[in-house]
Formats: sequence, structure tokens, C-alpha cells
Amino acid sequence: METKACVLYSARDLRIENVPVAEMGDEQVLVRIGAGGICGSDLHYYLDGGFGVVRVKEAMILGHEVAGTVEAVGARVTKVKPGDRVALNPSRPCGKCEFCQAGEQQHCLDMWFYGSAMRTPHSQGAFRERIVAGEFQCEPVGDSVSIGEAACCEPLSVALHAVGQPGSLTGKRVLVTGSGPIGALVIAAARYAGALEVVATDLHDAALEKALEMGATRTVNVARAPGLAAEEFTARKGYFDVAIECTGAGGVIKSVLPALRPRGALVQVGVTGEVPVPIDAVVGKEIRLFGSSRFHREYALAARLIKEGRIDVKPIITATLPLERAVEAFQMAADRKAQMKVQLTF
Amino acid sequence: METKACVLYSARDLRIENVPVAEMGDEQVLVRIGAGGICGSDLHYYLDGGFGVVRVKEAMILGHEVAGTVEAVGARVTKVKPGDRVALNPSRPCGKCEFCQAGEQQHCLDMWFYGSAMRTPHSQGAFRERIVAGEFQCEPVGDSVSIGEAACCEPLSVALHAVGQPGSLTGKRVLVTGSGPIGALVIAAARYAGALEVVATDLHDAALEKALEMGATRTVNVARAPGLAAEEFTARKGYFDVAIECTGAGGVIKSVLPALRPRGALVQVGVTGEVPVPIDAVVGKEIRLFGSSRFHREYALAARLIKEGRIDVKPIITATLPLERAVEAFQMAADRKAQMKVQLTF
Amino acid sequence: METKACVLYSARDLRIENVPVAEMGDEQVLVRIGAGGICGSDLHYYLDGGFGVVRVKEAMILGHEVAGTVEAVGARVTKVKPGDRVALNPSRPCGKCEFCQAGEQQHCLDMWFYGSAMRTPHSQGAFRERIVAGEFQCEPVGDSVSIGEAACCEPLSVALHAVGQPGSLTGKRVLVTGSGPIGALVIAAARYAGALEVVATDLHDAALEKALEMGATRTVNVARAPGLAAEEFTARKGYFDVAIECTGAGGVIKSVLPALRPRGALVQVGVTGEVPVPIDAVVGKEIRLFGSSRFHREYALAARLIKEGRIDVKPIITATLPLERAVEAFQMAADRKAQMKVQLTF
Amino acid sequence: METKACVLYSARDLRIENVPVAEMGDEQVLVRIGAGGICGSDLHYYLDGGFGVVRVKEAMILGHEVAGTVEAVGARVTKVKPGDRVALNPSRPCGKCEFCQAGEQQHCLDMWFYGSAMRTPHSQGAFRERIVAGEFQCEPVGDSVSIGEAACCEPLSVALHAVGQPGSLTGKRVLVTGSGPIGALVIAAARYAGALEVVATDLHDAALEKALEMGATRTVNVARAPGLAAEEFTARKGYFDVAIECTGAGGVIKSVLPALRPRGALVQVGVTGEVPVPIDAVVGKEIRLFGSSRFHREYALAARLIKEGRIDVKPIITATLPLERAVEAFQMAADRKAQMKVQLTF
Repeated sequence: METKACVLYSARDLRIENVPVAEMGDEQVLVRIGAGGICGSDLHYYLDGGFGVVRVKEAMILGHEVAGTVEAVGARVTKVKPGDRVALNPSRPCGKCEFCQAGEQQHCLDMWFYGSAMRTPHSQGAFRERIVAGEFQCEPVGDSVSIGEAACCEPLSVALHAVGQPGSLTGKRVLVTGSGPIGALVIAAARYAGALEVVATDLHDAALEKALEMGATRTVNVARAPGLAAEEFTARKGYFDVAIECTGAGGVIKSVLPALRPRGALVQVGVTGEVPVPIDAVVGKEIRLFGSSRFHREYALAARLIKEGRIDVKPIITATLPLERAVEAFQMAADRKAQMKVQLTF
Repeated sequence: METKACVLYSARDLRIENVPVAEMGDEQVLVRIGAGGICGSDLHYYLDGGFGVVRVKEAMILGHEVAGTVEAVGARVTKVKPGDRVALNPSRPCGKCEFCQAGEQQHCLDMWFYGSAMRTPHSQGAFRERIVAGEFQCEPVGDSVSIGEAACCEPLSVALHAVGQPGSLTGKRVLVTGSGPIGALVIAAARYAGALEVVATDLHDAALEKALEMGATRTVNVARAPGLAAEEFTARKGYFDVAIECTGAGGVIKSVLPALRPRGALVQVGVTGEVPVPIDAVVGKEIRLFGSSRFHREYALAARLIKEGRIDVKPIITATLPLERAVEAFQMAADRKAQMKVQLTF
Repeated sequence: METKACVLYSARDLRIENVPVAEMGDEQVLVRIGAGGICGSDLHYYLDGGFGVVRVKEAMILGHEVAGTVEAVGARVTKVKPGDRVALNPSRPCGKCEFCQAGEQQHCLDMWFYGSAMRTPHSQGAFRERIVAGEFQCEPVGDSVSIGEAACCEPLSVALHAVGQPGSLTGKRVLVTGSGPIGALVIAAARYAGALEVVATDLHDAALEKALEMGATRTVNVARAPGLAAEEFTARKGYFDVAIECTGAGGVIKSVLPALRPRGALVQVGVTGEVPVPIDAVVGKEIRLFGSSRFHREYALAARLIKEGRIDVKPIITATLPLERAVEAFQMAADRKAQMKVQLTF
Repeated sequence: METKACVLYSARDLRIENVPVAEMGDEQVLVRIGAGGICGSDLHYYLDGGFGVVRVKEAMILGHEVAGTVEAVGARVTKVKPGDRVALNPSRPCGKCEFCQAGEQQHCLDMWFYGSAMRTPHSQGAFRERIVAGEFQCEPVGDSVSIGEAACCEPLSVALHAVGQPGSLTGKRVLVTGSGPIGALVIAAARYAGALEVVATDLHDAALEKALEMGATRTVNVARAPGLAAEEFTARKGYFDVAIECTGAGGVIKSVLPALRPRGALVQVGVTGEVPVPIDAVVGKEIRLFGSSRFHREYALAARLIKEGRIDVKPIITATLPLERAVEAFQMAADRKAQMKVQLTF
């Protein structure tokens, strides 16, 4: 059996091709993919052929934010049945290394992840009409949300993982810098976790309107002074208990520190290279900075929160195109000012 | 009554002068200072007239690492009596602000600290023969350690506070970067807290020999390759559970990250300005970075550990000069390659 | 000036009398009380003249769950102005003892609390038409909730404090045993904190209906088998991550343990005397049991959550009577099967 | 090949018999056992045929505290070589269940443990001259400690796990109730973890002398008034930050609570059935009670601390008998007043 897939050969060389569908094992399922979201890393592969030292060295199917409908199940599968709608967890930690055995699967020494060029041969991705996946990857999403919403489980997992890093957010004042797709989901996750205030920042008012839809209690357009330097944020050594940095932009950490109270937490989600950090402020205020990467047990939680309508991800889906128009979809996604999350349908 | 004191007028203008001794209140004590250690901040005041935005704007008595003998006590004092040897806690938080009421006194909005130009009028310091101090500042140090050792309570408090930031060190592999006086005390504090391994780094072998005396289980001279880039430190995503950064030097954080295991902690003690931090490594490994500043309840613990001989601070005291030779002492202290802790006697 | 108050002389000897209104100091406010809720401890004083070793030894005004309208403010008051509606924090920790200075004010060595016979002379309570209170006790509740709802700030604080003890509840399966007024507020607080499931128990279906109104995702009437012994709760070593015990009834802890997963948390809110605890289960499953008492910083949070309508406390208010009918109100409150929270109006 | 083993048929029916030695697999080692300590559970099997619902239903080799010398290794073994002295970790969690994958292996749903009747067929124990064990069970203990000391790795692991439950002990005041073999090792582990004070209790002065040898800073014979009710322990709401309960005796928890400061931790190590716990004290002081069971990663740490002489376990070994005199050894071990740890040699 063959299926259509979205294959990247090199930067800006993206093709819709037929690829074989693997044979289904006893603990596997055959899923008809319904929707897939384009992530920042997909975009880096498409635009630049990779990021940092990670480069596309062979043809690779893109995509790791997908959901669909189960078409068939292996002999020993009990978790789902044909007809069930599921989100597919894109990660498969080895389960055996010291990190897996410590409950820190996101740092697995032998991680396999849909659509990633971190290992060679590359881990092929999930932007294809049909895919054979492990039963363990399937999280039921029910019938009351769209398959596009279900395809947001992966980025919501990232957001839930981030908000969990600094301990309980209940009753806290939280700053979220950057109201793109991840920032927007972080806002929703912080509200779900009981944050008292969630102040969102961005350079663009359109993103800030989305931030309000996702639950921000207030927004600050940091393109306009005073931004976070406002007296109300910096008085008495700082206003926020927690800041969650989702931009990865160079100067943001420095601009956040004066608004963060002593012993406050800064969760870094946005990825970038070297950034200047004012160590005197970090030390003097005893700031606690937490890097946050990916997720593990949060995937099942994300699926359940979307399924039960507790977190509404619809506002972030700004465009949906059929697989055939994938190149156009990637180009749209590259315009971050105009788009939040662009999804493909299959 | 007058007493001799070590007064700084401006950069490199340090004078031994008579200053008045304050009248002793009911909850105060009169202390005959025995020894005082020169700290990095004293040295900055002396060499540069301050650091960052903190500048000496009026004559200021230096010194905040002191110990001595009680000569007289106020009517309501019960904690100490004449003849007792005490270390003097240099800090007096207000007790009322939101940080004091949260048990985070080191972030007091109205902190008073011996020998500090952070507020004007400056907080006068404790390098003087006699001083009137609050009963609450006094921590008994007993009769079995030298008064110079007792004067190490303040930097040991800083070290104990630092090792307490990332949670329990028991059974952990700890890296201490920089084996100067604070690094050396951090090594001892980490061993006291049950660290399994304490690997100390420095650019100079002499400092590393001190590190071994203070309890390091191994040393690495990072002036010689491979330093922390050695395979044994970077294999399997990193060797150390915790790194405690005591240099404040620019590139050290970057060099430490590959040797730190995922979800490892980096405690920043050394103070500096902006430093480039590779955010991709912090995020990808989910590093937790903790700024550590000063101390509060650790002062009483430090006094007790020194008093009972549980931590031996003698190796860090490398020179002791009488008050009259204070200028010479400060110049010696400036040679960090040759000296760890230079103390004055009174 | 005099005002009417609800004064207890001894068990079941409750009188409505005129008492003097204190003179208002510069940092005080005069509040016209609008509503006051009858708490379990008020009821113990009324029915039994006290509880345990705490006995009413002199005439004491009852009441500590109150809210009202500011009528006048002292010269230095800035937080509120006449006309503002406020809830009154009934506790005044000393601010100076070791517990206050550690941020653990609920354990103050010199605590003063409205309507408490724990110290003699007793702390007079707040069931009176007019009262002079400290500015620091006032938490604004705005104009969009009833004054009866505002008077629920105190028990909601207790609930928020309880749900905060075991760390973040986000995504957790939570069991709440006992769906009386505190249990009901704990349910709401757990949902606010992001609990994924909140299963409520009680012996009475009426209480369980209230539990659903307050946010329980499921209820179990433990008067009917199998209760918590159901296979779904005990399989795989236990279902719940956290149990919050609000009954104080003798056998409940024992019945909860099999349903709690290994390393799960049991927060004990209900107060009672000695209870048999199966230590082998506590040890074998490494259960973590947290006593939870009163609140401190949660009071301001409770006021804000009620003010902003984020937690709706209306379902727990089951009866409201004027001060003149206080005796009747206390008798109603004693019928816990029929009533949740009985309030007085002034 | 056959080897002599210590086989229990039923209560007090203990026989020294020949049993077959299993064939060694590629990832296994053949160990010549040198010493084995008799644990409380071994004693329960011997004296009573089990404990609680765990009963010996078939012949079972006893013993799980053993160390010996490697005689041969399988083809893929790299961790040890013939001649190495090793302690054998008696537990083999499945590695796959939800608890193993969460780093909570001590709660494995399919745990296998030397000499345990918890599952049927029983897990055969390690009191035998030769045994085939997994490479993963082997922890090198070097050549500078006796094999009897090495056989204390298992109970030391239990102690290290217990002291790790309430967070860092550094600088804390710790109470250890019960100075038997586990209590004695808990004392040493608490000192290793940086406890400032370790006060040990027992009913017998001989045990308290051992407690001092193991590092207690003070002892209290609770058979003599006032015991823990002394003013110095109960003033200002309690003296100890942490209590570690190692007796399992009925009234001990109740006697400890007044001496524990508010928000203090009580770690329960001693196992027993139902015990009356005064819930009002637990709630009023917000005591945190942690059950502590077995160990996982602490085994390697224990081996290293014994190997490197950082914890000296010699004082607890009070008698050593050859395998042939096993019955006598078990009878000696039953006299807990006279013996701490009785070991067999092979």
C-alpha cells in the first residue's frame, strides 16, 4: 500500500509523493491522518534545510503535530479501535536509558521523534495520508472537537510542560513574552493551572488580540514604550512571580528581569543561540531560570484537555490548506506576523 | 569614646582614623573586634571606588566579615555576655517588608549592611577596634577556634546559601568553578551537605591545592585542555548534577553546560555584568539556573559549624596584618593569584 | 458608640447585646458588617462551650467569616475608602516571631484571631453590626458579588491553603472526602488549580449534588458499597494522586489509602482527635500526609477570586438569617445534613 | 553444581541444604557470598512464618543483605570481573511499568526481591554459598572494608532513602526514634547529609551508646521521664525540624509530635499495623508525614559510601556466625536488646 506524503529533499524543495505504508504489527494501528500543524522546526527545515548543526541530509517526510482516525488495529491493541479519533504522540523514548528510568523521557539517549533530522537515517515524519503508529502513541480525542484542534495536542504538550517547570502557578502573576502559537498555548495552560494574572507581550497587536482570546488578563505591546519598563512592573523589585519566555529573541531576557520579583522564575521556552544575560541581575535577585524542552506525560493531558473542551485551541489555527498545497502552506506559515498556526488537511 | 577605624574616602584613599563609638542601647552590645576579612566588594571599593552603579560618595568605614569579643552588654541582652567571642552578622533586614515577611530577608526592601555604599548615607562598616552592634547580630563562636576563623562566618554563610539553592546535594556530583575564597568555602559546604563528588576548577594550581584541602575530591586546571570538555564529563549528556559557578568570568557558564547533565542545576554565585549564555543548550538540556545572593538564616549555621570544627576554614586565610597596615593588606588582597583571604587584626 | 453583637456566655447561652465600638486609630477602618458565616468552630463554642482544651471562660463575641462596607477610615489609610465593600481577614499574626519571619504566619507564636477562646482574655469576634478593624485586614471585594458571598473569603482561604500543600494539582486526579462547606470549597479550589479530575465523596446525596455544582467531575456516595473500595480506584496500587480529607471522621484515612497511588499525597483538613492510621500502608506506599491549618497569604487570593467571579461560592450558602435570629441560625447550622453554610445578616 | 543454602520451610523450621546453582547467562555473574545480614523481615519469616498477609507457603531461601566475591562473569559483563568484591542489590524492578518509568522503581508492579514471600512462587533469597546474579545487581565495594561491612549496603540504602524523603537535612535538627540497626544507619545517613543535630532515642542505654558511635550528637532514653516531653524539646511549638521514626512502636508518633516544630517532617520507616495518630496535632502544626519504603538509586550510593569509608557501619555488626550455625544466629538476632545486626558467613 502506498500513501501520499509531504517529503523535503532540501531547503525549499518540498514534494508531495507516494511513499509506502509500513506493515502493521500486533501492537500497532493504521491511522488515516486528518490534520497536521506546521511547527517552527518544520519551517526551519523547509526554509533553511535545518537549524544549528541539525541539517536535512536525505529525503525526510516532515510533520509531527498530527491527528486522525484509526482505520485498523493490530491483534494485541486494546487502547483504541477502528473509528476512534486520535492524536499521535510524535515521540518514542527508548524506555531503558538512565533518563527514561528516571522519568525524564524527554532527555532519552535514544529518542525517536517524527520528522526530525537529529539522527541519521532521519526519523520520518507524519505529514502523510496514512501512517502505521504504535498503540502507545495514540491518545483518544473524542468526537466533539475538530481534527485540526486535535492536531494541536503536541504544541499544547510543550506549553503544559513549560508551565509545570517552576512549580504551582496557582494564584501567581505570570508574564508570557511572545504571543505566537506557543506563547498563546502557554497563556491558556497558565490560566488552566490557576494563574491569577497572565500578562502577554508581543510586538504586534494582532497577536495580542489572540492572546486575550486564549486567556491573557492583560497585554503589553513591547514595541511601544514603556513596555515592561513601566513603573507598575518594576516597583518594589518587580511585579511577576513567573515569566515564560516564548520568543527566543535576543534582548527579551534582559528586558524581563527588572519586572520579575526576587526569587521569581523565568521559564525559557523559545530557542535561540547565545544571548547576553545580565548576571548581576540574575544573582542579585536570585532569579531561577528553567529551560523547558518538549514534554512527556503532558501529551496525554493535552489530549484530554482538548477532548473535554477545557482548553480551547481554535483561536490559534489561522489557516488550513489541503496537502496538495503544502508548499503554499509553508510559505504562509513563514509569515509569522500574519499567521499563528497553519495546518494541512489530508 | 573613640576607636580606630579603616575609612575609605575614595578609590585608593584609605585612612586609619579615630571615629566615635556609638552609645550602647538596651538591646545592643559593645564588641572589641579581633579580626576582619577583606572581601571582593571591599576591594572593589578600595581599588575602583565602587562597582557598577554603586559608588562611594562619602567617607565610609569598610568591612563586613568580622568577629571579636563582647566587652559590655545592654540591659535587655540575654544571648551573650562580656567575654563571649562572637561573629557579627553584617546584615539587618527591616523585618517588615513583604520579603522579610516571606522569609526572604536577603531581598529586604530596606536592607542595612556593614560597609555598603548601596544607600546614602552609606552603611558604615565594621573594620574598627570597637563597635556597638545589635544583640541579634551576635553569633557565639566559642573558644576553640581563632578569631580569624570566626571572621569567616560571613563568606561561609554565602557558601552555605549557595549550596542550598538547588535542593539536597546528598549523593550528588558537584562541580565548583573557581577555587578562590568563595569557591573554596563552597567546596567545604558542598562536602558538608553530603555531595558524593566535588570537582573543583581553577586556572591556577595553587588554588586547586587549596581546593583539595577544603574537601574537593578532584581538581581540573581549566587553563589546560581539555578542561571540562573531557569526554568523561560530556559523555551521556553530561556528568554533573550540580555546578556552582564562583568565578563570574565571562565564558565559564558556556564551558560548564556540556558537562552538566539534563535537568542539572547551575548555581551562579560569581557576579559580573552581561555574559553570553547559549540558550539552546539551556533549553535543550532543561538546565535550571539559580542566582544565589548573600544569606539570611545561614549565618547562625555558619557560626555553629566553625565553632564546632565541622568546617575548617583555616586553609583559606593566607595573610593576616594589623589594622595599621590596612593599605598594604588591601594591596595584597588585590593579588588574587597569590592570596585567598587577607585579614586585618585589631 | 454602641453596636449590636452576638455574644456567647457559655454553651447554648447566646445573646444579642449592645457592645461598645472601639475608637478608630489612624491605620484602622470602621466597617458596617453585612454578613457573617457560621463556622464549625463557632458551632462548637455554641453547642459545647468549646472543643478539646479550648473552652469559653468569659463572654465572647463569636464570628470570624465576615464582610461589610467601609464607613470611615483613619488618617493614614490608603487601601480602602468609605463605601468600599471589603472582606475582613480575621487573623493578625505578630509579624515578629520566628514563624512570621519565616513566612509561616499561620503558626505565629502570638496569633490573634476573631472569636477565639484559645487565649485569655479571649479574642472577641466579628458578629456585630459595626467593628473597627485594621486596614491590613481589609480585602476589597468589589460590587458585583453579594456581601454573603464576600463573607466566604475565610473558608475559601482555608480551602486554597489546603490545595496548595502537596504542590501543583495541575493535571492531577484528586479525591475530596466530605462535601460539607469546606469540602465544597476545596473542590472549587482544586478545579481552579487545574485538577484534571475531582472525585467527591459524602454520606449524603444532597451534599454530593452541591459537590457537582462546585466543580466535582464525579461523586461517590460512600454510604453505599463499594465506595472507594471499587476496583477502578484500587487497581494498579491506587487511582488518585492526591486526596484531601475534609471530614475528620475516624475511619476515612484508612478507607482512602487503598485508592491513593504510591507516593500520593493525603492532605488532612478535617480536625479530630486520635484516629487509627494503618502505618504499613503509609510506609509501603510511601504516602505523604500533609496537615493543613488555616491560611495566610491565601486570604487576599480568595477575596480576589470571589470578587472576579472566578470561584462561585453561592451554592454553599444554604440559609441566611438576620442577627436577631442568631440562636435559630446556630440551631439550623447544627443540622449538617440539611445545611452547608448558614449566614447571619446585620 | 550445588551449593549450601539456608532454607526456611515454615516457622522455626530452618535447614542448611544443598541447592542447585543456576546456569550463568551472558549478563550474569557467579558470586561467592562472603557475608549476609539477618534483617527484621528474615526474622519474621523465621519466627512467625511471615508477617501480615505475607506467609511462607513453600520452601524459601532467606536473605537479602549480602556481599561476596565475583568468581566468574558472563560474556557481555563489563561492570565487574572475577576477583572483584561486590554487594548484591536484592531488588529487580521490571523497568517497564508506570512506576519504573516514573523513576519510582521501589513501587514496581512486578518487583522481584531476594528472599520474599510476597509473590508465589516465592523469590528465593541469597543466604547461599554461591549465587548467580545479574550484572546490574553488582556494586563494587573495593578491598578496604570487610565483606561483612559490604553486606550492610542494603540496610544503609534503606536509611539513605529515608533521610532523602523530607528534602535537604543540611543544617537541620533531626530526631531519630529507635536506635536499632536501621535507626543507627539513619543516624549515620543524617549526619552524612549535613544534619546539624541528630538526637537519638531508645529504651536501652546500650543502643544509645551505639547511636553515639554512629554519629548522634545527643541521646535520650525515653524509658526515663521526661523523654521527648522535656521543656527544651516542646517550647516554642517544638524543637526538631525532622523526625525519623524507626521503631514502628504504637505510641511513638504521638510522643514525637509535641517535639516537632510546625511544618516539621516526620519520616516513618518503622513498619507496624494501625497506630493511633492525633490528627488535631498533625493538622494544627501542619506536620508533613512521609512514609519511606525500601530504596532504588540509593543502593549504589550506599555501596560507594561504605567502600570509601565515608560511613562506617562496623558498630552495628554485633555478631557473626558461620552458615552452619544459622539457627543459632536467628535466635541471637531475635534478642533485639542484646544484638544490633547478626551476620552469617559462608
